[in-house]
Amino acid sequence: MKPTPPSPLVIERIVRAALEEDVARGDVTSEATVDADAEGAAEFRAREPLVLCGLDIVEHVFRLAAPAVSVRRQAADGDHLAIGAVAARVEGPARGILLGERVALNFVQRLSGVATQTRSYVDALPAGARTRITDTRKTTPGLRALERYAVRCGGGHNHRDDLSSAVLIKDNHVAAAGGVRAAIERARAHAPHTSRVECEVDTFAQLEEAVAAGADVILLDNFDDPAVERAIAFVAGRAILEASGRVTLERIARLGALGVDVISSGALTHSARAVDLGLDWVS
Amino acid sequence: MKPTPPSPLVIERIVRAALEEDVARGDVTSEATVDADAEGAAEFRAREPLVLCGLDIVEHVFRLAAPAVSVRRQAADGDHLAIGAVAARVEGPARGILLGERVALNFVQRLSGVATQTRSYVDALPAGARTRITDTRKTTPGLRALERYAVRCGGGHNHRDDLSSAVLIKDNHVAAAGGVRAAIERARAHAPHTSRVECEVDTFAQLEEAVAAGADVILLDNFDDPAVERAIAFVAGRAILEASGRVTLERIARLGALGVDVISSGALTHSARAVDLGLDWVS
Amino acid sequence: MKPTPPSPLVIERIVRAALEEDVARGDVTSEATVDADAEGAAEFRAREPLVLCGLDIVEHVFRLAAPAVSVRRQAADGDHLAIGAVAARVEGPARGILLGERVALNFVQRLSGVATQTRSYVDALPAGARTRITDTRKTTPGLRALERYAVRCGGGHNHRDDLSSAVLIKDNHVAAAGGVRAAIERARAHAPHTSRVECEVDTFAQLEEAVAAGADVILLDNFDDPAVERAIAFVAGRAILEASGRVTLERIARLGALGVDVISSGALTHSARAVDLGLDWVS
Amino acid sequence: MKPTPPSPLVIERIVRAALEEDVARGDVTSEATVDADAEGAAEFRAREPLVLCGLDIVEHVFRLAAPAVSVRRQAADGDHLAIGAVAARVEGPARGILLGERVALNFVQRLSGVATQTRSYVDALPAGARTRITDTRKTTPGLRALERYAVRCGGGHNHRDDLSSAVLIKDNHVAAAGGVRAAIERARAHAPHTSRVECEVDTFAQLEEAVAAGADVILLDNFDDPAVERAIAFVAGRAILEASGRVTLERIARLGALGVDVISSGALTHSARAVDLGLDWVS
Amino acid sequence: MKPTPPSPLVIERIVRAALEEDVARGDVTSEATVDADAEGAAEFRAREPLVLCGLDIVEHVFRLAAPAVSVRRQAADGDHLAIGAVAARVEGPARGILLGERVALNFVQRLSGVATQTRSYVDALPAGARTRITDTRKTTPGLRALERYAVRCGGGHNHRDDLSSAVLIKDNHVAAAGGVRAAIERARAHAPHTSRVECEVDTFAQLEEAVAAGADVILLDNFDDPAVERAIAFVAGRAILEASGRVTLERIARLGALGVDVISSGALTHSARAVDLGLDWVS
Amino acid sequence: MKPTPPSPLVIERIVRAALEEDVARGDVTSEATVDADAEGAAEFRAREPLVLCGLDIVEHVFRLAAPAVSVRRQAADGDHLAIGAVAARVEGPARGILLGERVALNFVQRLSGVATQTRSYVDALPAGARTRITDTRKTTPGLRALERYAVRCGGGHNHRDDLSSAVLIKDNHVAAAGGVRAAIERARAHAPHTSRVECEVDTFAQLEEAVAAGADVILLDNFDDPAVERAIAFVAGRAILEASGRVTLERIARLGALGVDVISSGALTHSARAVDLGLDWVS
Repeated sequence: MKPTPPSPLVIERIVRAALEEDVARGDVTSEATVDADAEGAAEFRAREPLVLCGLDIVEHVFRLAAPAVSVRRQAADGDHLAIGAVAARVEGPARGILLGERVALNFVQRLSGVATQTRSYVDALPAGARTRITDTRKTTPGLRALERYAVRCGGGHNHRDDLSSAVLIKDNHVAAAGGVRAAIERARAHAPHTSRVECEVDTFAQLEEAVAAGADVILLDNFDDPAVERAIAFVAGRAILEASGRVTLERIARLGALGVDVISSGALTHSARAVDLGLDWVS
Repeated sequence: MKPTPPSPLVIERIVRAALEEDVARGDVTSEATVDADAEGAAEFRAREPLVLCGLDIVEHVFRLAAPAVSVRRQAADGDHLAIGAVAARVEGPARGILLGERVALNFVQRLSGVATQTRSYVDALPAGARTRITDTRKTTPGLRALERYAVRCGGGHNHRDDLSSAVLIKDNHVAAAGGVRAAIERARAHAPHTSRVECEVDTFAQLEEAVAAGADVILLDNFDDPAVERAIAFVAGRAILEASGRVTLERIARLGALGVDVISSGALTHSARAVDLGLDWVS
Repeated sequence: MKPTPPSPLVIERIVRAALEEDVARGDVTSEATVDADAEGAAEFRAREPLVLCGLDIVEHVFRLAAPAVSVRRQAADGDHLAIGAVAARVEGPARGILLGERVALNFVQRLSGVATQTRSYVDALPAGARTRITDTRKTTPGLRALERYAVRCGGGHNHRDDLSSAVLIKDNHVAAAGGVRAAIERARAHAPHTSRVECEVDTFAQLEEAVAAGADVILLDNFDDPAVERAIAFVAGRAILEASGRVTLERIARLGALGVDVISSGALTHSARAVDLGLDWVS
Repeated sequence: MKPTPPSPLVIERIVRAALEEDVARGDVTSEATVDADAEGAAEFRAREPLVLCGLDIVEHVFRLAAPAVSVRRQAADGDHLAIGAVAARVEGPARGILLGERVALNFVQRLSGVATQTRSYVDALPAGARTRITDTRKTTPGLRALERYAVRCGGGHNHRDDLSSAVLIKDNHVAAAGGVRAAIERARAHAPHTSRVECEVDTFAQLEEAVAAGADVILLDNFDDPAVERAIAFVAGRAILEASGRVTLERIARLGALGVDVISSGALTHSARAVDLGLDWVS
Repeated sequence: MKPTPPSPLVIERIVRAALEEDVARGDVTSEATVDADAEGAAEFRAREPLVLCGLDIVEHVFRLAAPAVSVRRQAADGDHLAIGAVAARVEGPARGILLGERVALNFVQRLSGVATQTRSYVDALPAGARTRITDTRKTTPGLRALERYAVRCGGGHNHRDDLSSAVLIKDNHVAAAGGVRAAIERARAHAPHTSRVECEVDTFAQLEEAVAAGADVILLDNFDDPAVERAIAFVAGRAILEASGRVTLERIARLGALGVDVISSGALTHSARAVDLGLDWVS
Repeated sequence: MKPTPPSPLVIERIVRAALEEDVARGDVTSEATVDADAEGAAEFRAREPLVLCGLDIVEHVFRLAAPAVSVRRQAADGDHLAIGAVAARVEGPARGILLGERVALNFVQRLSGVATQTRSYVDALPAGARTRITDTRKTTPGLRALERYAVRCGGGHNHRDDLSSAVLIKDNHVAAAGGVRAAIERARAHAPHTSRVECEVDTFAQLEEAVAAGADVILLDNFDDPAVERAIAFVAGRAILEASGRVTLERIARLGALGVDVISSGALTHSARAVDLGLDWVS
């Protein structure tokens, strides 16, 4: 199933802020050098293989900043684009195309970067593995909804959206509550009955305590592969197991083979490289 | 001179958007596991050598989301931090510290990443070189003002802020205006008398035309080192010369030695790696 | 544990909108009849027994609209107030007190109404019952965060916050997915691993299917008491059971005795009566 | 004449805030269980007799959150709907209909509740009575413009919109100004010449003083029926008389028969019950 | 009585928008030429005789853009300042003073211009005249609340605030309603009982009709002085009479002597000259 | 070339704020006196000769506040309109036309006033003069983008947009930096290489120092005509020369004849008179 893009309410808000930074005060160069009635057409084209993400944003960029420019999609978010493949075509006043170009590219290059990297993680899993690759809350400030969508476009899943949408007990919570069991019990008593309770553990002892206390999800923080394997055997389905820390493509393959339920990676969003995708004029 | 941080008006707007994403709906975990009156203290500490950027943001994060938490700076933006060095100390309600932790880190890790990478570029210049390292408009949507500041913290300079703040004639403008000379003349006639006129050139012929037409700044797009050297000799101070494209540390050293005025790099902002800086509890 | 109030970010946004409606254009009456330097003091006082909710809002009202007025709390949110008990005292310029009075009362009367009604539901449960009373998404548009807090002040719990924070499969989803089992499986595959999957059922057959498909929570929609009893026996702890529909104090007592896990009620927020609490001048 | 709905500027602002609460982060359930291309149609239908209010809001909800869903009105605001009557029909992507359903219902149920209760007050007046039923400033924070419109849809009138739009002298103003006469004179001297001056009175002596001072409108605060009758006789058309306090349907009939000009009631907005109106799928 | 300034909610919103235009992106000149720790002091000083208006705005400008700069008032809004008199003194970081200077001056020069012109109109009235000088809705877009306050600082009064705050029937309304009488009756039936009904008339026949229909206020549009005199005699206190059109100081004196109740003038706000008031450095 | 209007993002924001002031709460007069289905048409017509500015704003006013009203342009911004010439025609619901009338006029009268005054300045230059007439930062708070556009519509040019878009060294900066030369050098070292460096001078000695330090632009502050002439001769093209202070039509002619590059005038925006342009009903 195709991932669902963020709400137009959210996209519009984020795109508007980006346009305020770059184009709201006008484009002194194009206003000087390009006639107001000059028309043009251009294509967003991949210059390296990539997984596409950001077409809704492209549409919002032009609708808000240059409404006379039309956008026609030639591909869909989540598609693999080969070098030279066209993502979308824009047509209309040349000034309008130039106005929105940079903002549109800044979004699409970054989001496609996240999608492409996610896809490489997902593809590193052994065939048939049920392991999920997920993001974390280490997203670019202001762009979380878009980056979560990019992760889904790459075949990944999302972790909790914000601090309110699920319980995730970390070491400071354990310390404050007086132990893993106490923290889990307090969380269970407090959280909405619709939320799962996840607990991060650093040691096998903590893992045992978390299982005993009925944690729904257990985050194995920086467990090496043998430790993950042992944890899976011990838990035996009584909780969902999430591995995190020092995730590489090789490790993903091994962890997927072990059958861990979830691998979460902050690098998906905080360190993805912008892909090379440009806007080429075709007339 | 220490770089000047962005206006509090701008920082507050950006921080508010980031807090809305992560903390505005509350922190179900801390509310459950940490007593409301529990106090704590923690330090933002470097886990790798880095150039710091983001202290004003840390202050805004806590002032807006957890006003009872105090922030005490232990270093200044632009400082080099060794491993283990403390950037700032926060004290107050433990829940408040936990609430703002992730948002603060997401900002500081990214911005310090930009500052650190910029510093490595600047440090790659030969001693005594007058060459400037600058950013471009390839910034993260919504974070331009902060990333430009991060570049300054790393010892770099800023290129134009947005499409209105200076003329930069590119190939499409040249084509639309009917040549380099025409484009420069139209720009000169149109732009405020307070703005310089910059023109991008792809060939030596265009360079000659740009100089003849009186361009203030000329962007040598993807010129290799010998071509840059030849351009410098030809222009002989009649215009500011900016090199861009495929910037590496080695190339920066060579270009600096040649004496190019400006080296601009989109990678400073679109591909900087987040640095490792954490929040460690000290009580 | 005292419930945690919504973020100041959220309270400020909501209070600001309310002040725009009533006071932003000034108070023509007080400006005419009350001297600018006249001082006064007044107390928010219960005129019927109630559970208090809204003190943070009172503070924001005056801080934003009349910063020279000080607010001193005499009670805490969640407290039972007897007739005549004082919730808070305000002191300062008489014009400022008059300016904020109506907006503050509109909030506190409504939110305390929700808290008071929730408390009556919670108190209707048999001693020792583990049953939770929860709200629904049938909240006043714009006030959801505050009303959820009011429910907590009354001793209730919150259901999911919005459409993103947990899965709740209803009849249309079942129809669209092609059955209870298919809907639950699709939800499980799609939703974050941190979310539970809840399914609404109308019949015992659906209940059986939901249990078999591994629903975490099952909403018994308009089941009468014997049906709820039978459902509890059948499910036997394999899922959390939530009863909803036609909730009265008598039914709460019975359902609590049966041991249902959750009773959810839209009436807590869409039909709570505003309580009688006034602002009395004391000087 | 049909009442005029609030400005689209206002409706959009309020609807946007409500959508942010519930749908802006997506609908995890529908995204999982309903295919993106599934179409549907549904009708907003009365489940009890009611006076309708809120169709503009329904349109804005879907236009902003799910623009592919069309809304077709089958009735008009202010209409009486019998059980089963259809207010509006929505058609389009099933996910879009599900997305906006709850927010739309939350608005329409509440506003129609206000309109329906207002209508019952207006209908309680004797045939031919010129008495107006009006609201007060005791409205739901954030929803004043909508609730005032709902009152008009129910056949009522509005009192002043906010503290700036008319003078209403209350006991504190009288005390601050040094008496009813002084307060009225100060108000007259200060207020725009386009505003009337209204004064609240608690006693017959105050009533006499207010008439003597030339009050345009006099609010009889908690006067019982004989006192209202005596006041009407005394004033004899020299001022508009408004009765308030403990308004019931029976009292409305008696006060209307006495010929009081205005009956104002905070309960119209602070205590109206949400009516039962649902969204039924028709395909 | 000193006029009451607009709500801080309103001032902050307007000042913020003005700061976004001028200072939010930084001050490249001061950042380069003034050391960050340089301190300074400066005084807002009248360079021509004027009536002051705008001190609250000055405070907001610096609080929002340069919080380390303190503002000390040396005069009050509404005061007459002679040449050289000081309105306020600012002290603190020199960069901060330079940052806010232009925005503060732009506000104070304009608002003091409106106040000064209003005062000249008010002073043109004969001693003892009860005539009010009022503004209209012909205000600078975005600055209405401030300009209305400036009018009050000059001794004038305000007309209605916006289209909702009072009835003012003009020729198009008369035409649409089918005559002056019908328009007044429809307005009376529709408008809140707290609003007066004003009707503009072009002829004496319309004036008679308006009086007969019970208009509270009658606007004599472009009546010359004899016609105003005749209108006053005819109306004889049955309505408030407002004169407008071609208002000069000489005419104000004559109209005041005739005893017209109100003289309204759009020029007070749409054509007031900015006064000369500067910021002089004192250290 | 026709001047380019501000971004729709900016126009919408400014128009929205103006509509909030005047029409967002409804039009009590038109709602009472004009039937909801009454249609009308009206024309914006010049009542004095003027240079038109503001058509985009007219369109936004009606699109936002009364979307059923259509706007048809009959002229273009920048056009000279003779008395009686029509700028635009609006058609649709009469209530909608009345709703937007005042806000639209308030904008167009002011902006056309700025454009008309600018045109009179530009026309005062001798034929063939290359001198530019420019605005300053002395614009109406909140309306800078619109007023800058109005200046362009009148044939003028813009000075720098805000404090960030170019360097302009004034006396305080010179004092802080320790002299003209030091200030210019610090500015050159600090400012983006895309910005020019302008320096204000009060004396001939400062002028010489500024030229020697390589200022790109020199502002001759309050130089009389002979001094300007002497400055032009001395500078001899080494810098752009800008004259400001006490600008009159006669002086513009003389300065243009002398060949100064730029004449800047704050009066263009802070003291332009609103032109007489009305909305006349045509059906």
